[in-house]
Amino acid sequence: MTKSRSKDIEVLRGHIRDIPDFPQKGIVFKDITPLLKDPETLILTSRLLLDPFKDEKVDLVAGIESRGFIFGTRLATDLNAGFVPVRKPNKLPAQKISVEYDLEYGTDQLEMHRDAISEGDRVIIHDDLMATGGSAKAAAELIKELGGVVIGYSFILELGFLNGRAKLEREIPVHSLIEI
Amino acid sequence: MTKSRSKDIEVLRGHIRDIPDFPQKGIVFKDITPLLKDPETLILTSRLLLDPFKDEKVDLVAGIESRGFIFGTRLATDLNAGFVPVRKPNKLPAQKISVEYDLEYGTDQLEMHRDAISEGDRVIIHDDLMATGGSAKAAAELIKELGGVVIGYSFILELGFLNGRAKLEREIPVHSLIEI
Repeated sequence: MTKSRSKDIEVLRGHIRDIPDFPQKGIVFKDITPLLKDPETLILTSRLLLDPFKDEKVDLVAGIESRGFIFGTRLATDLNAGFVPVRKPNKLPAQKISVEYDLEYGTDQLEMHRDAISEGDRVIIHDDLMATGGSAKAAAELIKELGGVVIGYSFILELGFLNGRAKLEREIPVHSLIEI
Repeated sequence: MTKSRSKDIEVLRGHIRDIPDFPQKGIVFKDITPLLKDPETLILTSRLLLDPFKDEKVDLVAGIESRGFIFGTRLATDLNAGFVPVRKPNKLPAQKISVEYDLEYGTDQLEMHRDAISEGDRVIIHDDLMATGGSAKAAAELIKELGGVVIGYSFILELGFLNGRAKLEREIPVHSLIEI
């Protein structure tokens, strides 16, 4: 990592706060709202998320509901790509496919429209945070089932101690701005 | 409206599809996912959402969960503003305020962090769709309670026949790309 990039990452890190016992006792929630509220860290985050992919051919950015929507369209438009929402159950209105996955706390489902992806589309999966990797893995499964090719994962934060990467296919690069 | 703008709007309109009986019988859901998926309409929408505000001083864009998150950060970064999420109950981790509002179908609540807004901040409220205006009005109430000044509303779609504008303060401009 360059000196200027590691300095930028430190700036972002200073705009993320720990909220203990949210959403339940024993969980320390990483709150990115201070980073979002500040125009400088908002654009800096957009730029840093773009960096690892800027020379790649990308067809779609798939953002995981709902915090993955926050930078998804910014990243997609920076890459001349489209944006596809990966949503929680019963939110998408048209024909869709579903997959169940384990959360850090509980289980949940993710869904995508059947027509969200065309055969061979090159797709980045984006979310604000990777914890156990369950939702990222689920999104990758949906994309592959629809004929897409996952070319990378993009996160602002990665809780390294939960080892979410172990759930993901080894050959697909994972780009997290901040590892904890 | 200029000829080129009205042509652009027609392009967007062609990328929004009607899904009957979603989320419940008798409701026709306006699905923007075809617009999001296409890189050209994604960037076009971003540009058209920016147009009415580009000469304004804007401190924050408040995006309403969750489809208001999709263009919120793109709009905020284009305006050198920050982004603030207006969220559904029990999603925000820090100290917050809440307001209840009527939906097109049922009731719901919206919440914002207490520290989301500084006194006098100039804020745009953004969502993908204005239906009855309930959530937009609720977001405006939260922003005002926190000391912010709502300088405009930004929507992709407005269901004009539901007359949501009647719920909003008359002197604050409402910019909808597509009126139905």
